[in-house]
Amino acid sequence: MPEQRRLYEDVTAQGHLIDSNILSSIMNGIVELDGEFEVLSLDIGRGNENPSKLTMRVFGRDEQHLYEILRSIHEHGVVPVHLENAHVEPAPADGVFPEGFYSTTNLETYIRIGGHWVHVEGTEMDLGIRVDEVTQTACGVPISQVRAGDRYVVGQAGLRVISQERPREKTAFEFMNSTVSSEKPKAQTIKQVASLIREVRDDGRKTIAVAGPAVIHTGAAEHLARLVNAGYVSVLFGGNAVATHDIEVALFGTSLGIDMKSGVPVPGGHEHHLRAINRIRAAGGIRDAVEKGVLASGLMYTLVKTGTPYILAGSIRDDGPLPDVITDVIEAQDAMRAWCREAGACIMLSTMLHSIATGNLLPASVTTVCVDINPAVVTKLADRGSLQTIGVVTDVGLFLKQLADELGC
Amino acid sequence: MPEQRRLYEDVTAQGHLIDSNILSSIMNGIVELDGEFEVLSLDIGRGNENPSKLTMRVFGRDEQHLYEILRSIHEHGVVPVHLENAHVEPAPADGVFPEGFYSTTNLETYIRIGGHWVHVEGTEMDLGIRVDEVTQTACGVPISQVRAGDRYVVGQAGLRVISQERPREKTAFEFMNSTVSSEKPKAQTIKQVASLIREVRDDGRKTIAVAGPAVIHTGAAEHLARLVNAGYVSVLFGGNAVATHDIEVALFGTSLGIDMKSGVPVPGGHEHHLRAINRIRAAGGIRDAVEKGVLASGLMYTLVKTGTPYILAGSIRDDGPLPDVITDVIEAQDAMRAWCREAGACIMLSTMLHSIATGNLLPASVTTVCVDINPAVVTKLADRGSLQTIGVVTDVGLFLKQLADELGC
Amino acid sequence: MPEQRRLYEDVTAQGHLIDSNILSSIMNGIVELDGEFEVLSLDIGRGNENPSKLTMRVFGRDEQHLYEILRSIHEHGVVPVHLENAHVEPAPADGVFPEGFYSTTNLETYIRIGGHWVHVEGTEMDLGIRVDEVTQTACGVPISQVRAGDRYVVGQAGLRVISQERPREKTAFEFMNSTVSSEKPKAQTIKQVASLIREVRDDGRKTIAVAGPAVIHTGAAEHLARLVNAGYVSVLFGGNAVATHDIEVALFGTSLGIDMKSGVPVPGGHEHHLRAINRIRAAGGIRDAVEKGVLASGLMYTLVKTGTPYILAGSIRDDGPLPDVITDVIEAQDAMRAWCREAGACIMLSTMLHSIATGNLLPASVTTVCVDINPAVVTKLADRGSLQTIGVVTDVGLFLKQLADELGC
Amino acid sequence: MPEQRRLYEDVTAQGHLIDSNILSSIMNGIVELDGEFEVLSLDIGRGNENPSKLTMRVFGRDEQHLYEILRSIHEHGVVPVHLENAHVEPAPADGVFPEGFYSTTNLETYIRIGGHWVHVEGTEMDLGIRVDEVTQTACGVPISQVRAGDRYVVGQAGLRVISQERPREKTAFEFMNSTVSSEKPKAQTIKQVASLIREVRDDGRKTIAVAGPAVIHTGAAEHLARLVNAGYVSVLFGGNAVATHDIEVALFGTSLGIDMKSGVPVPGGHEHHLRAINRIRAAGGIRDAVEKGVLASGLMYTLVKTGTPYILAGSIRDDGPLPDVITDVIEAQDAMRAWCREAGACIMLSTMLHSIATGNLLPASVTTVCVDINPAVVTKLADRGSLQTIGVVTDVGLFLKQLADELGC
Repeated sequence: MPEQRRLYEDVTAQGHLIDSNILSSIMNGIVELDGEFEVLSLDIGRGNENPSKLTMRVFGRDEQHLYEILRSIHEHGVVPVHLENAHVEPAPADGVFPEGFYSTTNLETYIRIGGHWVHVEGTEMDLGIRVDEVTQTACGVPISQVRAGDRYVVGQAGLRVISQERPREKTAFEFMNSTVSSEKPKAQTIKQVASLIREVRDDGRKTIAVAGPAVIHTGAAEHLARLVNAGYVSVLFGGNAVATHDIEVALFGTSLGIDMKSGVPVPGGHEHHLRAINRIRAAGGIRDAVEKGVLASGLMYTLVKTGTPYILAGSIRDDGPLPDVITDVIEAQDAMRAWCREAGACIMLSTMLHSIATGNLLPASVTTVCVDINPAVVTKLADRGSLQTIGVVTDVGLFLKQLADELGC
Repeated sequence: MPEQRRLYEDVTAQGHLIDSNILSSIMNGIVELDGEFEVLSLDIGRGNENPSKLTMRVFGRDEQHLYEILRSIHEHGVVPVHLENAHVEPAPADGVFPEGFYSTTNLETYIRIGGHWVHVEGTEMDLGIRVDEVTQTACGVPISQVRAGDRYVVGQAGLRVISQERPREKTAFEFMNSTVSSEKPKAQTIKQVASLIREVRDDGRKTIAVAGPAVIHTGAAEHLARLVNAGYVSVLFGGNAVATHDIEVALFGTSLGIDMKSGVPVPGGHEHHLRAINRIRAAGGIRDAVEKGVLASGLMYTLVKTGTPYILAGSIRDDGPLPDVITDVIEAQDAMRAWCREAGACIMLSTMLHSIATGNLLPASVTTVCVDINPAVVTKLADRGSLQTIGVVTDVGLFLKQLADELGC
Repeated sequence: MPEQRRLYEDVTAQGHLIDSNILSSIMNGIVELDGEFEVLSLDIGRGNENPSKLTMRVFGRDEQHLYEILRSIHEHGVVPVHLENAHVEPAPADGVFPEGFYSTTNLETYIRIGGHWVHVEGTEMDLGIRVDEVTQTACGVPISQVRAGDRYVVGQAGLRVISQERPREKTAFEFMNSTVSSEKPKAQTIKQVASLIREVRDDGRKTIAVAGPAVIHTGAAEHLARLVNAGYVSVLFGGNAVATHDIEVALFGTSLGIDMKSGVPVPGGHEHHLRAINRIRAAGGIRDAVEKGVLASGLMYTLVKTGTPYILAGSIRDDGPLPDVITDVIEAQDAMRAWCREAGACIMLSTMLHSIATGNLLPASVTTVCVDINPAVVTKLADRGSLQTIGVVTDVGLFLKQLADELGC
Repeated sequence: MPEQRRLYEDVTAQGHLIDSNILSSIMNGIVELDGEFEVLSLDIGRGNENPSKLTMRVFGRDEQHLYEILRSIHEHGVVPVHLENAHVEPAPADGVFPEGFYSTTNLETYIRIGGHWVHVEGTEMDLGIRVDEVTQTACGVPISQVRAGDRYVVGQAGLRVISQERPREKTAFEFMNSTVSSEKPKAQTIKQVASLIREVRDDGRKTIAVAGPAVIHTGAAEHLARLVNAGYVSVLFGGNAVATHDIEVALFGTSLGIDMKSGVPVPGGHEHHLRAINRIRAAGGIRDAVEKGVLASGLMYTLVKTGTPYILAGSIRDDGPLPDVITDVIEAQDAMRAWCREAGACIMLSTMLHSIATGNLLPASVTTVCVDINPAVVTKLADRGSLQTIGVVTDVGLFLKQLADELGC
């Protein structure tokens, strides 16, 4: 757990804190034990008759350290703001949380069980927290996986959310965090995205690439394949369309019927995507098609050849679909969820549906770069609680080429 | 089959058509038998040495009538352009068309089997055509429903597509067909949409309403419910979101956490949608929740109370989902397909995903009104081959209110 | 000057403020004199050897009161952060500020001259501040009006900007301030805009309506005319287009060639706007055309008949233009500027160019409602420093009808 | 005049054209004289009692040739459809066309004066046609330049518009003409724009570049300057903003206050643009600033150094403006008009206002490339009658870099 996400307890004290020197005693007490504090509020009484009121966040290295500090300043009238254990109730049925269940954010979370703060495994938005009071463990569970009788947190008591702090050193993306605009110097942005994914790769962490069919239509598949070959992509998330059109290019030289060399529509080209799907269905799937030599180029080919996994999630607008597509959306979420929980970075490339779905599953701590030519898509993603989302409003085709050039791959 | 979609055969003739009076003989022959013709091309030879070439479409009332006309003009050297029967091959495996399969448009289609033109049942884009040569019948089949050994049309031979003609009388929507703009007089547009769906209802045909969550967020659910109550909506297509937020309004008074009375976010409101889902899961589903009195107002309530069917199709960005949601996307398509094949009109309300999916399934002859505040969504829909799509770029909230007012419901 | 925009001085103090009870002495001193304070920062020294540092904003009722308070707490080591007078230099030439000139915000501003705080007249973004040291007055001047030798503020010294505080009571628009979305309950929004402009009118303040041609094209001109008739619009800002198309409707029944009754293009209709301009030029201008009976209906007619002023500013994309259009853009700005300085509210209706231009001229304190179907326009306006801009992403045609209905006019 | 824009006369003939061999006689007559024809309509009488009706366009090399052909076929009952001279009336006042004036398109136009077809000089949309009957000349005149008593065409009689034909050989841009999409292969598009402007330069024709401030903000100014240096830009059209922000980069390293190296806002940076304007005003203008060494880099500097002209047109949203800006919009149009009439190509870069204004002034025959990240801007331009407008929906920053790379400059 990095320094900036230490365990804390919010405490409060009341009285003539300043003229009685209580405030300085409390502060001294914390500092002596090598703890830290942050004054959340200090209402100083106007005039002598009014007491002052302090609320302060006290940080410790771990639960034991925090406990020691709190015991030490207890004598100055300092009282923890929260004392309760989390409340827990059984799920009334399969797939149903107990009424009043606590719904998670995508931030790191602790719950208080038996007087102790227990880390909640599996950070994701809109989960319930299942508690095992015997082992004193807790984990986030999607509603579709609830089993009757399992015990879930209800209400807000005994909960601690560790807010996502901005790193203290100036980082690559700090400047872009709040703004989404096509009118920014582009060369810098690309350099910074490059160093982000290089850093993640070199640290041995994983980068998820979420790709929509525009990546294929704009001719950017080859540049994304360069990133895959160079090990910058740990897993590809997409749908039936991105894989189908990539395969259409490999088999027919067109994407959605547009010739990729000349940019003109090919007669009968609107059928190519369904023919491509049919050939892959005949081969038994994408991997089989690569093995049989039916599919010999493109992004999906590169993924298979490099052993890079991919998850294709179905949607009701799909033709076909390809045999590799997971047609049950809850199953598809579960497959994506596993990757999201261990991701180091995520690059979303011109797909609103898959990007929002992935954003829902990602912990807030994962830096996410969202590239789309439509500012509304980027704004929508940034609004959904993916705190570290960096919006880049640009042309995905030109972007991926320059990113791969920048990374020298 | 209306007059403007008669069966036809394209024929060709070559030679000194004009100075030998051949042309007039052919035309006379057709007209005498009460047939009609359209000159597709007439290349008149420059000078005397060059022959002329005619291509002409000859229309008959039915196959028999057409056959008689063709026999009659045969003597003037008139040759049918197409003579072949459709080629048919067996599907090599479940879920796989024979290579080279014919992929359908959403236009009415005939195929030639045993020298006869046979109507293809089930008009939809991107299907294969399954042929039963014994019963001389043909129908469109999605790739996911193909069974090994069934016989499918391959190639282009023996196929006839009946193009969607613009009705001759001036219709309500003629003016909007090619343009998509927010800068049009709105009062007229609303009047014309109103008369479209009134006409469809009064003719006993069915109107599909496809609705996204913006209908709920903008407070328009009550106005859509007015249309449901008045019988203007035969079935609702939507996803988990539209139903969930409607139920959130009913249970908590908020939509995505925004109070519907004041428009301000409610503390903790971002959890309401998951709580709403949980209560419906606890009740066993939307219909059960209505019966148990858990759900007592809103659009979904109105659908249940009026016995109006709804299809909720799942997506990977869903939370929950509600028990009524079909999570397998191919199953969901099949459920939607049944309604699409008998629809008289379709109104798409602020949802790109569900509108595109529905557009894929609709025959071209179904008049479709697509309402969205984003011109790009409307353009995208119009581009996908839904010929009768009328784009209305406007605010769905204000639109539905004025539409319901106009219809007096 | 309302309570929340009192004059203040930022002061600083350093030392063992807490354990020496200095902090409490300072606070007591201010409160005893009926002043108020806000702690801007309090860096409390960790351990005993480190001094603490306080920065505090001290508020007084007026300059005299503030001066008394500051003198009183001076004894505790409290030092004003800023002491300097504003620096002033002469303009080197007509139309040129002295290098290093202070460029204004659109917030209320004071400058220190001869030890006194002097209010700067004429709040607008991107002006210089001209100082008359004899009369101790200061006013904002656009660069185009600078005269050589006039004296202007340079640098940041001696400047005080009064930030725009959110009113303490909950206001109509508070909820919308930070968000721009088409997915909000619309009925509430319209109610609140209605009560804003009713309040402004009833207070005898002025409302500027800025209108683009979409108001005419969507058929909303009649609804805007209802607002004009009922006295809700004090002045109309627009360009050649809004007036031309309004007159085109009056003379030919079309707007940009589209028939306003049927919504269909009229043959030859694309010339109507130029014919309309020509007739008004022949008549000598809009007012003359009304007097001569050439123009007898529409928005411009209503403005003339009710004596409501209008300013039409030229643009390089204009055809014609109408004789009423001010073709010099700096002259047009000056004409608009006069109204902006005394406005109570501003409603911007579907015009990016005129809305941005007006936004540049408006003081930050003027509540501005920006209605456009394009979220990007609204975002762009909100980004340009018009703090009180309320974005309403909706269809201007339906919006104005419901607004006029709501106002009962 | 290229082959495909020959002079023509529409003629008509009626009767038993086919069985009387009249049709073949007419055709023979034309071909013998080396003329050409196009059958516009041929209504063939059904049965013997009904006459047929032919309308045909007859083309000649020039007026004399056409006259000979028409005289030759006259004997077969062929009658010109149009026989009248253009009607001409005096302008009633300065700045006013005669009522009923003919309003031009942007297509090449001829008028019939004294029985002869006279070419109209100055092709532009929405002009009147001034006729000098003595010299038998005609030219297009904007309404603002009309002088009382000058004679203008009224009505439709005696007018001939030469439609813009698609070149017969397949050209670079044919494929893009009707579609506007961000989802097209980008590398091809850039190659084709490159060959267009290379061809125009190498032919000694002129390319207009119309640029908005996004060119500067995205860091693309250096790439546009590369095009200027290599002679690909004959003139730059823009406004106060593009020049101001370019100069801001040169003087302060920021564009709209954003540091161009790091992409982060610089403290006080929002004032830089006004400071930049002030320095240029102090220097006397952009050219003076370059001479004095005040301005030593950037796009404007490159224009001055290479002697490339620029036209900066004012707008009401301008700050300042720079002394080089033409603040009267009609004057600015006149300055732009001169260049538009002799342009070979036009590249519009991320500016709606200036692009529309330029589009209004360009003849339809000028190939225009419109680059914008916003599809709505591109659609709007394509809708305004600029027939040869090629929309490229992409990021102008990345586009200009790759274009300059492609051109090797």
